[in-house]
Amino acid sequence: MIKIDVTELIFAAKKENDLSWQAIADAAGMSVVWTTSACLGMNSCSSEVADKLVEFLGLPAETKSVLMEYPTKEWDKSVPQDPLVYRLYEVVGVYGDTLKEVIQEKFGDGIMSAIDFSMDVQKEENPKGDRVILTLNGKFLPYSAW
Amino acid sequence: MIKIDVTELIFAAKKENDLSWQAIADAAGMSVVWTTSACLGMNSCSSEVADKLVEFLGLPAETKSVLMEYPTKEWDKSVPQDPLVYRLYEVVGVYGDTLKEVIQEKFGDGIMSAIDFSMDVQKEENPKGDRVILTLNGKFLPYSAW
Amino acid sequence: MIKIDVTELIFAAKKENDLSWQAIADAAGMSVVWTTSACLGMNSCSSEVADKLVEFLGLPAETKSVLMEYPTKEWDKSVPQDPLVYRLYEVVGVYGDTLKEVIQEKFGDGIMSAIDFSMDVQKEENPKGDRVILTLNGKFLPYSAW
Amino acid sequence: MIKIDVTELIFAAKKENDLSWQAIADAAGMSVVWTTSACLGMNSCSSEVADKLVEFLGLPAETKSVLMEYPTKEWDKSVPQDPLVYRLYEVVGVYGDTLKEVIQEKFGDGIMSAIDFSMDVQKEENPKGDRVILTLNGKFLPYSAW
Amino acid sequence: MIKIDVTELIFAAKKENDLSWQAIADAAGMSVVWTTSACLGMNSCSSEVADKLVEFLGLPAETKSVLMEYPTKEWDKSVPQDPLVYRLYEVVGVYGDTLKEVIQEKFGDGIMSAIDFSMDVQKEENPKGDRVILTLNGKFLPYSAW
Amino acid sequence: MIKIDVTELIFAAKKENDLSWQAIADAAGMSVVWTTSACLGMNSCSSEVADKLVEFLGLPAETKSVLMEYPTKEWDKSVPQDPLVYRLYEVVGVYGDTLKEVIQEKFGDGIMSAIDFSMDVQKEENPKGDRVILTLNGKFLPYSAW
Amino acid sequence: MIKIDVTELIFAAKKENDLSWQAIADAAGMSVVWTTSACLGMNSCSSEVADKLVEFLGLPAETKSVLMEYPTKEWDKSVPQDPLVYRLYEVVGVYGDTLKEVIQEKFGDGIMSAIDFSMDVQKEENPKGDRVILTLNGKFLPYSAW
Amino acid sequence: MIKIDVTELIFAAKKENDLSWQAIADAAGMSVVWTTSACLGMNSCSSEVADKLVEFLGLPAETKSVLMEYPTKEWDKSVPQDPLVYRLYEVVGVYGDTLKEVIQEKFGDGIMSAIDFSMDVQKEENPKGDRVILTLNGKFLPYSAW
Amino acid sequence: MIKIDVTELIFAAKKENDLSWQAIADAAGMSVVWTTSACLGMNSCSSEVADKLVEFLGLPAETKSVLMEYPTKEWDKSVPQDPLVYRLYEVVGVYGDTLKEVIQEKFGDGIMSAIDFSMDVQKEENPKGDRVILTLNGKFLPYSAW
Amino acid sequence: MIKIDVTELIFAAKKENDLSWQAIADAAGMSVVWTTSACLGMNSCSSEVADKLVEFLGLPAETKSVLMEYPTKEWDKSVPQDPLVYRLYEVVGVYGDTLKEVIQEKFGDGIMSAIDFSMDVQKEENPKGDRVILTLNGKFLPYSAW
Repeated sequence: MIKIDVTELIFAAKKENDLSWQAIADAAGMSVVWTTSACLGMNSCSSEVADKLVEFLGLPAETKSVLMEYPTKEWDKSVPQDPLVYRLYEVVGVYGDTLKEVIQEKFGDGIMSAIDFSMDVQKEENPKGDRVILTLNGKFLPYSAW
Repeated sequence: MIKIDVTELIFAAKKENDLSWQAIADAAGMSVVWTTSACLGMNSCSSEVADKLVEFLGLPAETKSVLMEYPTKEWDKSVPQDPLVYRLYEVVGVYGDTLKEVIQEKFGDGIMSAIDFSMDVQKEENPKGDRVILTLNGKFLPYSAW
Repeated sequence: MIKIDVTELIFAAKKENDLSWQAIADAAGMSVVWTTSACLGMNSCSSEVADKLVEFLGLPAETKSVLMEYPTKEWDKSVPQDPLVYRLYEVVGVYGDTLKEVIQEKFGDGIMSAIDFSMDVQKEENPKGDRVILTLNGKFLPYSAW
Repeated sequence: MIKIDVTELIFAAKKENDLSWQAIADAAGMSVVWTTSACLGMNSCSSEVADKLVEFLGLPAETKSVLMEYPTKEWDKSVPQDPLVYRLYEVVGVYGDTLKEVIQEKFGDGIMSAIDFSMDVQKEENPKGDRVILTLNGKFLPYSAW
Repeated sequence: MIKIDVTELIFAAKKENDLSWQAIADAAGMSVVWTTSACLGMNSCSSEVADKLVEFLGLPAETKSVLMEYPTKEWDKSVPQDPLVYRLYEVVGVYGDTLKEVIQEKFGDGIMSAIDFSMDVQKEENPKGDRVILTLNGKFLPYSAW
Repeated sequence: MIKIDVTELIFAAKKENDLSWQAIADAAGMSVVWTTSACLGMNSCSSEVADKLVEFLGLPAETKSVLMEYPTKEWDKSVPQDPLVYRLYEVVGVYGDTLKEVIQEKFGDGIMSAIDFSMDVQKEENPKGDRVILTLNGKFLPYSAW
Repeated sequence: MIKIDVTELIFAAKKENDLSWQAIADAAGMSVVWTTSACLGMNSCSSEVADKLVEFLGLPAETKSVLMEYPTKEWDKSVPQDPLVYRLYEVVGVYGDTLKEVIQEKFGDGIMSAIDFSMDVQKEENPKGDRVILTLNGKFLPYSAW
Repeated sequence: MIKIDVTELIFAAKKENDLSWQAIADAAGMSVVWTTSACLGMNSCSSEVADKLVEFLGLPAETKSVLMEYPTKEWDKSVPQDPLVYRLYEVVGVYGDTLKEVIQEKFGDGIMSAIDFSMDVQKEENPKGDRVILTLNGKFLPYSAW
Repeated sequence: MIKIDVTELIFAAKKENDLSWQAIADAAGMSVVWTTSACLGMNSCSSEVADKLVEFLGLPAETKSVLMEYPTKEWDKSVPQDPLVYRLYEVVGVYGDTLKEVIQEKFGDGIMSAIDFSMDVQKEENPKGDRVILTLNGKFLPYSAW
Repeated sequence: MIKIDVTELIFAAKKENDLSWQAIADAAGMSVVWTTSACLGMNSCSSEVADKLVEFLGLPAETKSVLMEYPTKEWDKSVPQDPLVYRLYEVVGVYGDTLKEVIQEKFGDGIMSAIDFSMDVQKEENPKGDRVILTLNGKFLPYSAW
C-alpha cells in the first residue's frame, strides 16, 4: 500500500460520507490546505494527525503508517494545463521578476522558503463576483557567504 | 523604443537616484507590486500613471507612450531557475491539486482569475527569521455551460 | 468510477443506440459542443443535466455523481498531432499576435476569457465545398491595476 | 529588407499617424484580421493591396515587393505564454477532441482547412461585460482514399 | 474494441495466412499504401471496403464498424527514431525550405494538402542497388485573403 | 564569408534580375530541387556547377569556394511550423509506419537512403485544383548482419 | 508474441543455463555484437540464424518467426542516462564536428552509413587498467547531386 | 579572444594555405582526430603543441594561451541533425543496450571512459564502396563500492 | 524477477522489521549510502554482500542473483522535482561553472569521476539548526591527448 | 554595466596578472568556491568584499555596485553537457533517491537547504590518482505543517 492507494481510499470515504475537506481538516486539527495536501500524498502526517484521519474517515489501520511516510513530491506536467493550476503558473511567469525585485528590496538577497512555509485560502464575498484570497507565508532565507 | 528600453532607463534612473521600488510606486500612486511589474514591462500604465513615472524618474518624453503600450507578457524559462522564482513554481507544483480541491470546494467549478487580479508582498518580522507574506487576490470565475 | 469510465460507457451507449452527439445534446437540453465536452469529461454537469444524460443514455445510476464532478482539464499532446486539432493550433500560432492586436484595439488591454466562454459549430453549405463555421464567444476581461 | 523590417515601419507609421488597424484595413480594402496579419508578416499581399498599404502608410517604395513575398509562417513559443494567446491555446487543448467529434459528425471524416480559411473578430456589448466574438470559417476537406 | 485491437487481429490474420499487404489491398480494391494505413488505424474505411477486409481476412463481424470509425491520427515520437522513418523526417528537415521555394514558385502562395492527398511506393530495379520511388500527390491549396 | 552570406547574395541577385529557381537551375545544368537546396546552403557544388552559378548570378569570385564547401545540414525547428513544411512532417507522422510496412515488404529489412537520393516536384494541372507531385527516389539499403 | 517477449525468454534461458552472449553468438555463427542486438530485438535474423538460436537456447518454436521479423528500432531516452551509454553519447557530442571534418576530408562530402555497418568490441589488457576497443565500420555514402 | 575566435583564425589559415587537418596534425605531432578537436575548441593543447600550431598556421601570438585554455565542452543540438553526426547518434541509440551487455560481459560492472580515451578514423578501400573505420579506445572504469 | 521487485521486497522487509538503512548497511558491511543505492537498484552487489542482505532481510533465495546484476542506471525526471533532490540539482546549476574553475585550477584539465566515486552523508548538530554534510569523493581523471 | 561585463573584466585581470582563483579568494578574505561564484556573477558581495576585489584586481570603480547586486541565478543547459558538470548531474540522477532516503532517515521529513549552504573543494593526493573531495554543507529544513 502506497500513498496513492490511501488517497483513493480517502476520496472514496469522502464521497460516501459526503464530507468536505474542511470537515476532514477540522477532524485532523490542522488547516484545510495542509490537510488536503497530506490526503493527496504531498505531506507527511504526525502520528497524532494520522490517527485522527484514520478514525474520522474509517480507513484501514495499515493506512496510518502510509500517511506518516515522507512523500516524494513530484507532479506530472512541468507546465500545468488545468486552468485553475495554469493561472497560478501564469502568475509566477508574469510576476516572477517583479516578486524578486520587491522581496529582495524588502529583505535583502535571499528567497522565500517553500519548506518553512504555509498557505491559506479565503473566500471574499463581493457583489461583482466573489474573490479568492490566497496567502503564502514563507520564511525569508538569506543566501550564505563563506 | 520598446518596453525593454524603457525598463533599462528606469533601472538606470533608479540606481542613479538611489530609489526604491516603493518610492517609485508611491510617486505613481499605485502599489509596489503593480508598479514594479509595469516598470519591468509586464503591465500597461494609464496616461496619469505614465505621466507620474516619467516625471518622477526624469525619463524622456517619448517613454510615456511606451509605458502605456499593452505588453506581450512572456517569460524566458518555462521552468524557472532563479531560486526565488523556482520556489514559487515549486509551490504551484506541490500544492496545485490541493488548491484545486480547496478553491473548488469553497466556490464551485471554476478558477481564480489571473487577470482580474492583484498581489501584495508584506514583511512579517519574526525572531526566528522574518517571513514573506505574499497575498494573491483574484476574482473567482465559474465555468460557463451553454 | 472516474470520468474516463463514464466516457467509455457513453461511447458504448451512443454506438449501440446509433445516437448522434446532437441527439444527446437535445436530450440534455444543452448545446452540442458543451454536451460533447461534458461527455468527454471536460466539463461538469448540473444535477438536472446529469439526470437527463443518465436517463437518455441508460447509464448506471452511479455515473450521475461522476458527471457532476469538477474535471481536471488536461490534454496529452502539448502540440496536437491529429490534423483536425492541429489546424486549430496552427491558427493560434499564425494568427495569435494578430488577434492580440485586433482584440486589444477594440477592447483595451485584457483578454478573451476561456472560462466565461461558449463555442458553436455550424455547417455552411457551399458548392465549392462546405465550410465549417466555428464561433468562440468569450467575455472580455480587462487587466487590473492596483 | 525583409518582412520584419516592414512590420517595424508599419508600427512606426501607425503610431506616428495614430492609426488603427481598422483604418489600415479599410484603406487596404480588406478585413481587419487579414490586413493585420499581412502587416505582421504572416500573409502575402496582392500587388493592389500592397500599393494601397504603401500609399496609405507612406512606406518606402521597396516595401511593396516585401509585402508581396510569400511568408514563412512560424512562431516563437510552441506553447504560447501571453495570456490572450494562451487562452486560445487552452481552448484548443480543452475542446480539441470535442470539436473533432462535432465537426466530423456534421461533415464526415476530414478537417477544417486553415488555408482556405478566414477569421473575424466582433465586439458584443453586454452590460455584464462586453464579449469577444471570434469566428473561424474554414473549408471542410474530406480525407482522400485511393 | 478499438482500432488498435483490429490492427492486432489483422496482423495475426496476415501472419497466419501468410498474406502480403499487396494482397490485402487487392482484396480491398484500394492501393497498398492506403490499405495498409487503414489497417494500421490511420484511415477510415467505407462500408464496402470494410466488408471486403472483414471477409478476406476472416475478421469478427464487429470489426467492421471499427474499421469505419474516423481515426485520431497521432504518433508517438515527435522526432522519429526508426531509421526508415527518420530518413523521411531528415528529408523534410534538409529539403523543407527548398520545397517551399520550389512549390511556391510553381504554384503561388499556398501549400500541398496532406488531406486531399495520396501516396505511392514503387520499386525500381537497378544493378547498383534497387531504388525506392515514393510519390506524394497532394492538391495545391492557395492561401485565402479576405 | 559562410554559406548563409552566399545565400543572401543569391536571393538579392535573384530578386534584382527577377530570376526563377528554374532559371538558375537551368544555368547550373542541374535539377531545380537540388540547385535550390545548394543555393540555400544544404548541398555542396562541384567546381563546374559553382562556376556556372557564380557567373550566371554575377556573384563575387570568393563565393565559389563557399558554394563548394561541405554543408552542415541542420534545421531550426525539430517540429516544423510553416504550413507547407508541416504538412510534409504530418505525412511522415501519419504514414511512417505504413511506409515501413510497404517498403520492407517490397525490399526486405532496410531503409530508403536519404543520401543516395534525389527529389522532384511537378505540377499536375487539374480542373478541381492543380496538384503537387513530389517524387522521392532513394537507394534501398539493406541492414547488414555480421 | 512480439520481440520483447522473445527477448525475455532469451534472458531467462541465458540465466538458467549460465550462458554468455559470446556463447550464444558462437552458436548462431554470428558476431557477439550483432547477435546480442538481434536478441535484444534490434535486428532481424535469417531463417538459419533463427533456427540456431531457437535450438541452442531451447526456445519455443513460435519464436523463430518473431526473431525473423523486421524490428522497429526505437529507444526510450533521446538523451541516454545510463553512464555506459551516456559516455558514447558524450563522445558523439564532443567529437561530432571533429569527425565530420576528418571523415569528409578523407572521403569527400557524404556520411558513414549506419545501415551498411558493423561494430566490434575488444578487450585490450593493460596494466594501468584494461581498455575497451570499440570499432565501427560503415560504408561511406557520398551525397547525390542531380 | 576566446576559443571560437581562434577556431575561425585556424579555418581561415587552413583555407588560405590549402592545408588538410592531417597536415596540421602532422605539424602538431598529434593525431588528426585530437588535433582537429583541439582546433575546434574541444580540447586543450600543451604548451609545446600550441607553439607548433601557432607557428605552422601563422597565428597571432596571443592565440597560444587560448589554445591552452581548458574548454567548456558543449554542443548545440541535444539530438544532432547533420546526417553524418546523426548516424553516430543513431548507432548509440540502436546499439546502446547491446554495447552495455557486451562490454559488461567482458569487463564487469563499469563503463568505457570518455576522458581517458582516444579515437581514430581510417579509410578502408573497397570496390563496393570505401568504408569508414572508426575506432574508440577508452579505459574501462569499474564502479566503486564503499 | 527484476531489480524493482527486489527493491519492493526490501522496503517491505525494512518496514515489517522496523529497520533503518544504517542497520541494513551495517549488516552488509558497507556504507549506508552505497547500501541504500544497491537496495534501490542503482548498484550491483558482490556475492558476499548479496548473501548478507538476503540473510539479514530474510529475502527469497532468488533475489541474490538479482542483487548481483549490473543495473541500468536511469532516472525519471531529467529535471528533478522532489524538493530534496531539486536542491542538489540547483547546486549543480548555480555552482557548475564555479566547480569547473576551481577543480581544474587545482588539478588541470579533466573531471571528477562519477564511477570511481564514493559519497557520504553526515549530520552536524547545530543550535541554529542541524546541518547536512554531504561529501563526494571522486578520482580526478585528466583528459587524454593522443 | 551588468554582471557579465564584470565577469569578463575579472577574467581579463586574472589572465593578465596570472592570478589563481585561490589568490583572488585570499584577497577577498572569503573561500575560493564562494569567491569564484561571486566573480562568475552567481552571488552578491558585501560592500567590504566588493572593495577588496575591486582593489586587488584593479577593476574600474563602477564595478563595485555591480558586484553587490543581487544576481539572477540561471543556467543555460537544463541538462548540462560539459563532462565535469555532467558528472555532478549524473550523481544527482543516480543517487537522488538514495540521498532522500538517507538524509530523511537521519533528519526527518525535510530537505538540505541550497541557500543556507556552503561548499568546499579539496585535493586528496593518492598514488592511484588524486581525488577530488567535494563537500556540501546545508542547513536541514524540516517541512512545516500548519
